[in-house]
Amino acid sequence: MTLLERFEQGDIGALSRLVSYVENRGDRSQELLGRLYPRAGRSMRIGVTGPPGAGKSTLVNGLTRLFLNRDRRIGIVAVDPTSPFTGGALLGDRVRMHDFPIDGRVYFRSMATRGATGGLAAATDNVAILYDAFGFDITLIETVGVGQVELDIIDTCDVVVVVIVPESGDAVQMLKAGLMEIADIFCMNKADRPGAERLIADLKHTLETQQLVAQSRKKSGLVPQRHTLISHENGENDTVPIIPTEAVNNRGIDTLHTAVMNHFERIRQTGLFDENRRRRLRKKVLNILLHRFQGEFVNLASEAELDRAIEDIRNGQSNPYDVSEQLYRQFLSRQ
Amino acid sequence: MTLLERFEQGDIGALSRLVSYVENRGDRSQELLGRLYPRAGRSMRIGVTGPPGAGKSTLVNGLTRLFLNRDRRIGIVAVDPTSPFTGGALLGDRVRMHDFPIDGRVYFRSMATRGATGGLAAATDNVAILYDAFGFDITLIETVGVGQVELDIIDTCDVVVVVIVPESGDAVQMLKAGLMEIADIFCMNKADRPGAERLIADLKHTLETQQLVAQSRKKSGLVPQRHTLISHENGENDTVPIIPTEAVNNRGIDTLHTAVMNHFERIRQTGLFDENRRRRLRKKVLNILLHRFQGEFVNLASEAELDRAIEDIRNGQSNPYDVSEQLYRQFLSRQ
Repeated sequence: MTLLERFEQGDIGALSRLVSYVENRGDRSQELLGRLYPRAGRSMRIGVTGPPGAGKSTLVNGLTRLFLNRDRRIGIVAVDPTSPFTGGALLGDRVRMHDFPIDGRVYFRSMATRGATGGLAAATDNVAILYDAFGFDITLIETVGVGQVELDIIDTCDVVVVVIVPESGDAVQMLKAGLMEIADIFCMNKADRPGAERLIADLKHTLETQQLVAQSRKKSGLVPQRHTLISHENGENDTVPIIPTEAVNNRGIDTLHTAVMNHFERIRQTGLFDENRRRRLRKKVLNILLHRFQGEFVNLASEAELDRAIEDIRNGQSNPYDVSEQLYRQFLSRQ
Repeated sequence: MTLLERFEQGDIGALSRLVSYVENRGDRSQELLGRLYPRAGRSMRIGVTGPPGAGKSTLVNGLTRLFLNRDRRIGIVAVDPTSPFTGGALLGDRVRMHDFPIDGRVYFRSMATRGATGGLAAATDNVAILYDAFGFDITLIETVGVGQVELDIIDTCDVVVVVIVPESGDAVQMLKAGLMEIADIFCMNKADRPGAERLIADLKHTLETQQLVAQSRKKSGLVPQRHTLISHENGENDTVPIIPTEAVNNRGIDTLHTAVMNHFERIRQTGLFDENRRRRLRKKVLNILLHRFQGEFVNLASEAELDRAIEDIRNGQSNPYDVSEQLYRQFLSRQ
């Protein structure tokens, strides 16, 4: 039996090997993904992001247990792009998996990412597509939210939970940092700590103000600039919920779960679900194209040619912009 | 007189407008950069990176004052990619510039970056090329080191100073986070705080061990995997220096300056300077090419065509991988 057949029959070992293959961009991984793609599309993708130490892993584990109790199968990807200053203290896959049954209803994978320039969001998306095709009902993507790469990853999710803690600062800071734009749901973890209530009130106030502004802009015919604002405009009473949790004590996880499911239900009904998936698909197609061009270009342009061009620049006979234009024309003429 | 002529005559207002033009990717910015490129190449580019709150701005200001006293002209770019969790508390340009003379010997610019997906490293490099062409002897690039984008930015520098504080954790964490690979010089700021000496000793030990490993690999014919390791191998006694500073009290800045100049001198002598610049140039050319392709593709592929392809995927008649391949072929056939 081939690996692919074993995968299609639900063999978790086959899944594991294909995930590695896709993560490492094996030669035929696009072909593989294209073939499995028709099987994907049913999994609900939930993103959980937040600063280091906010308790994301514990929350993800809590949600996983809850989904398990509801007979769902869950795939988890934990992404930590090992920023120089978060320390990259990635919990090993095996350590995390100790928490769950090993009967294939939960699968956990962390993305080893240092050095995986550029392709990390694409790789994560591809792994999630594998999960989806494998038959997981729920895909949980956990990222340490620290930069553009993580935003790109989280942008592939149907529902985004932003985890904060009482020490996370004030609402204005979060607004400035763009958190309001990515959060479908705020989760205030460690809510037993001092300052939680104050920050929740502050956040609620800011979210409501933001919603009023969005509504008045809508009425006056001004289209909101960011798509995510739209998602918070459909329906009657849908400011972004703020759910207090204490993940380590397993408190509030059920409320968080309900909020996630409600959001999912709402975007399904308003058509935003489809709209978002279409937008993401377009982004993905353009990304694959870019990658394709890059690969082709590097194949076709001889190293010697590139070296000569670089020398021309170093000698002052050309500049990077003209050289690129020239190489681009040469590339096209060779096709 | 045209803007370009004014720029060439050293008009700081013209520089300012061209920086904005390039930062916003004006239509003819590549042409502009190509034309100014021959004037660039003499400026020494120093990167200063570190976690939020480590005192990078104060250090950069201290170094700037020191360079000013040595009759150097200095251009500064401060990049804060406004991560959701650093808060993006960017000091305004005017606030920072209060520290310096307004006679054109120092120019400061912060990069407003939220949303500038992907192109941030390229934009920063282009601004630095403008500085260089304008005649600044020193270009200081300051980034909050938190992700891949920042690593890409810092990678365009001739000398990289990594700023840490006594609270930054231990050397093993830094090793794991890849800090050892990007640092040409460590700067232990706030060195009067408890833990500074211990961390310096720890770091020194780790750096020496790392150097021993690199040397033995070299002897045994194993090539070090990362280019930056090489930079610490040339010469006799060149482990990465660790400079204690107290930027707010202006202590240690002169030693840091000396370390920077020494490193610069050494890479000049060993040829690593040229090697690094050549490598970066190659990266830049490839990036411009990718950007070119992307622009061209978006111009040529009709929106309707892309929409139809996306619908095909949504209907299960195709997948992102096949669609991309098809669009790519169509693109080429139209050239």
